[in-house]
Amino acid sequence: MTADMERLSNELATLAAFSDAPAPAVTRVVYSETDRRARAWVRKRCTNAGLTVREDGIGNLFATWPGAQPELPAVATGSHIDAIPNAGAYDGTVGVLGGLEAIRMLQRAGVRPRRSIELVVFCAEEPTRFGIGCFGSRMLAGLIDGSELRDRDGKTLRDWAGDYGAIALRPDFYEAFVELHIEQGPLLERAEIPLGIVTAIAAPATWHIHIEGEGGHAGALLMPDRHDAFCAAAEVALAVERAAKSSGAIDTVGTTGVCDIFPSAVNSVPSKVRIEMDVRDIDGDRRDRVLAGIEAACEEIAVRRKVRITKTVINADPPAKCDARVIAALQKAASARPYQKMVSRAYHDSLFMARIAPTAMLFIPCRDGVSHRPDEYASAEAIAAGVETLAGALAELAL
Amino acid sequence: MTADMERLSNELATLAAFSDAPAPAVTRVVYSETDRRARAWVRKRCTNAGLTVREDGIGNLFATWPGAQPELPAVATGSHIDAIPNAGAYDGTVGVLGGLEAIRMLQRAGVRPRRSIELVVFCAEEPTRFGIGCFGSRMLAGLIDGSELRDRDGKTLRDWAGDYGAIALRPDFYEAFVELHIEQGPLLERAEIPLGIVTAIAAPATWHIHIEGEGGHAGALLMPDRHDAFCAAAEVALAVERAAKSSGAIDTVGTTGVCDIFPSAVNSVPSKVRIEMDVRDIDGDRRDRVLAGIEAACEEIAVRRKVRITKTVINADPPAKCDARVIAALQKAASARPYQKMVSRAYHDSLFMARIAPTAMLFIPCRDGVSHRPDEYASAEAIAAGVETLAGALAELAL
Repeated sequence: MTADMERLSNELATLAAFSDAPAPAVTRVVYSETDRRARAWVRKRCTNAGLTVREDGIGNLFATWPGAQPELPAVATGSHIDAIPNAGAYDGTVGVLGGLEAIRMLQRAGVRPRRSIELVVFCAEEPTRFGIGCFGSRMLAGLIDGSELRDRDGKTLRDWAGDYGAIALRPDFYEAFVELHIEQGPLLERAEIPLGIVTAIAAPATWHIHIEGEGGHAGALLMPDRHDAFCAAAEVALAVERAAKSSGAIDTVGTTGVCDIFPSAVNSVPSKVRIEMDVRDIDGDRRDRVLAGIEAACEEIAVRRKVRITKTVINADPPAKCDARVIAALQKAASARPYQKMVSRAYHDSLFMARIAPTAMLFIPCRDGVSHRPDEYASAEAIAAGVETLAGALAELAL
Repeated sequence: MTADMERLSNELATLAAFSDAPAPAVTRVVYSETDRRARAWVRKRCTNAGLTVREDGIGNLFATWPGAQPELPAVATGSHIDAIPNAGAYDGTVGVLGGLEAIRMLQRAGVRPRRSIELVVFCAEEPTRFGIGCFGSRMLAGLIDGSELRDRDGKTLRDWAGDYGAIALRPDFYEAFVELHIEQGPLLERAEIPLGIVTAIAAPATWHIHIEGEGGHAGALLMPDRHDAFCAAAEVALAVERAAKSSGAIDTVGTTGVCDIFPSAVNSVPSKVRIEMDVRDIDGDRRDRVLAGIEAACEEIAVRRKVRITKTVINADPPAKCDARVIAALQKAASARPYQKMVSRAYHDSLFMARIAPTAMLFIPCRDGVSHRPDEYASAEAIAAGVETLAGALAELAL
């Protein structure tokens, strides 16, 4: 049983061309015209494979290959196709188109599973539109209802998706969920191991931090009289870095990825700054200690600089432990291929699917561990190993 | 001889309403539709006062009240009406509409000057569009020819102003230049002195600093492997602040007012950052020592963090010494009013007019020293003192 890599590579290239950035960069933000066109194209690929496609009110796609007993909970696989600004062609897409190819492989091999196998294309994994990652799978897991989502222009999920109705799935809706994904880190490549079987997914937290100082003329406002919001924000960003670095574990990461200055003029002292901060760890308690350290630093900076620092907690999710039976199915499917058990430091829709279904993830190496960049790359050989292992695990779980 | 403050206050309020930000904020960027409409309105005020208006190829306006010997070099006054995003109603506009009122006062008083008196409305003092302040007066002084100007979208001055031809004035074009302006600092108000006669204008320097690190996934890229461009930029901004604070003089100021992050996603490690930095001092050598300190800090940060830091010098102008005869005319015109000799830490079109004409500036207090903010304010009484003193000085210089 082998993956048709010629077709799959072509499909990945075709999907990458749905982009709002010039190639090789991929920008595909949920609900953009480009994202809608890309999803319509994926939908077509699914119906061409004989799958039955339905879509929920916010755009999660479900493509079903009916089993011999379609009344049983299905085995699901899937990932996302949205891409942050200036990203690459493999993050998420390998799990979607690779998941589809895994189903086609089983069809070609004449497998007739007892349970249905369903490909899920989550409407968005990236936080670009609403500032929170995985709102599609969060809603499927019943963790949020979407009414709290606002984009930078104040538009709501309803403004984008219309009257979307109930999205949450029953907790026993799926028999199992497996997500195939590029590692987005360097470990598999360095160890020259083709497969990573994920046993836990790191706990992410996102804060928006608002700093209010006092503006004024950059020439006339003397240094001792300043309460510069950007200098305060710079200290906050360095405190985030320091807190993550000094957690005592390599698994802690902290990033300030967004910084908006007001009024943003070279000759004006910044009066307001908004930064977006992301901290993750495979240990939820340790992550929370790092967050507490950042909060203490913000308080110290606010007092010393006489600025106001407030935060909005966008998310602070617990880590997920993967399911032993799904892990065992992946181990069995890996067959002769070497694999490594590992944790996922990036988070994924699987973090939320794990709340409602036995879940695990399968990682494949990507070049130099690079992701979220135009030069993100996974070889056809690496993808084939993932797809073939995924197909075996799906067949095993759907028996 | 008194200023018609009812009319002038109304005019200032009317001009403030030409704004791309909701009141009381004023946003009026050169060549925007709002700026063009505001300039047409100012032009009409000038022709209503019987002045002859001409405009050069880039939009500098010259409104002339002919003297008895119009062939002699004229005495000029003026300022700017453009406003940075979210600014106030008095910066520049007091020198333009107050200059017009000074001329009308002299007309009402039956003064018949020997030299023409000319109101100059510089096309832009603020650096918002092209990143460099005072490009209008820089071109009048022959310091730049405008071909180097590019806005953030890559549009040139020619794209905005058309084929503008020669702009520079002859070095002896004006007999003298006097600019009335709000102080944009707290000194006059604190001392309860209505007039500041400026003897020197601080030397400004603007750099754009480009930081190139390495991007990646905010969850997967481990802390020891990072070359985060934003953390490096944060250190640069703090180095700018530290260098300005430790120059040994209260007159040194340093500001990082703009910071653009790429790709600007909460879950992506910043790979590129561009900041805009402004350093000023009334002592050019001391300012250059501060700049050298910032450059050294950038080099240290680049080596330690393994990022690339490069700079573009947008401007690094020498300070200006004001002209003794123009200062004397202002002192005489101040008459019974107390005045204080002072330096201008903000820079102005006068910095460049001083290169081609005997120049001085007249400051009036503004509330709390606040400028470049919506709550910028100068009282009618403060403005009247400035306008009446300006009128006296213009009459004296045009004798």
